[in-house]
Amino acid sequence: MGTKGGNESSCDDGCPVRRTAQIIDGKWTTQIVRDLLPGKRRYSELLQSLSGISPKILAARLKFLESHGIVSKTIYPEIPPRTEYKLTKLGRKLQGVIAAMAEFGTRLK
Amino acid sequence: MGTKGGNESSCDDGCPVRRTAQIIDGKWTTQIVRDLLPGKRRYSELLQSLSGISPKILAARLKFLESHGIVSKTIYPEIPPRTEYKLTKLGRKLQGVIAAMAEFGTRLK
Repeated sequence: MGTKGGNESSCDDGCPVRRTAQIIDGKWTTQIVRDLLPGKRRYSELLQSLSGISPKILAARLKFLESHGIVSKTIYPEIPPRTEYKLTKLGRKLQGVIAAMAEFGTRLK
Repeated sequence: MGTKGGNESSCDDGCPVRRTAQIIDGKWTTQIVRDLLPGKRRYSELLQSLSGISPKILAARLKFLESHGIVSKTIYPEIPPRTEYKLTKLGRKLQGVIAAMAEFGTRLK
């Protein structure tokens, strides 16, 4: 058995469970996903509804979620330009994972 | 609205989703849970089946999981003493969460 192929169950940085944990962990991700569940939102709407988030952090989290295929961005070439975010098909699936984690988390000591 | 009660959805260190992520994250937790799913295991059996884990890390992870009510430990006063670990009722519920995270993680870029 090779060193790499010998242990299929090992959970290093590339492990699916860990990848999901890394997406979800952090203060704002679950709230951004929740705010996008009903449909498209403008950047300014998210900034307003996520009370306490800084514009810089919101932009960084959206970019991170976009890079992982959770969120998609559409820029409308209006004046002034309008930017809207929505969950991808994959992003909507995160709802079930977050719900399972939330349910388990409430039972933790 | 008070500062604390005003935003029920905020996900700081005490948030259920984050608490779950903190339990699950890391290289070994999911493997320890998986190894305990069939039933009780002795410390030495876990050490053997978790190929590559150090005795110190295994002891630390088990202690961490015990402190969060995921794993329970029984020491049998034999000679030499026998120590067995098993998942608690709560710990068994982690299986569903891990499965949901694993399924989602395989879809991530």
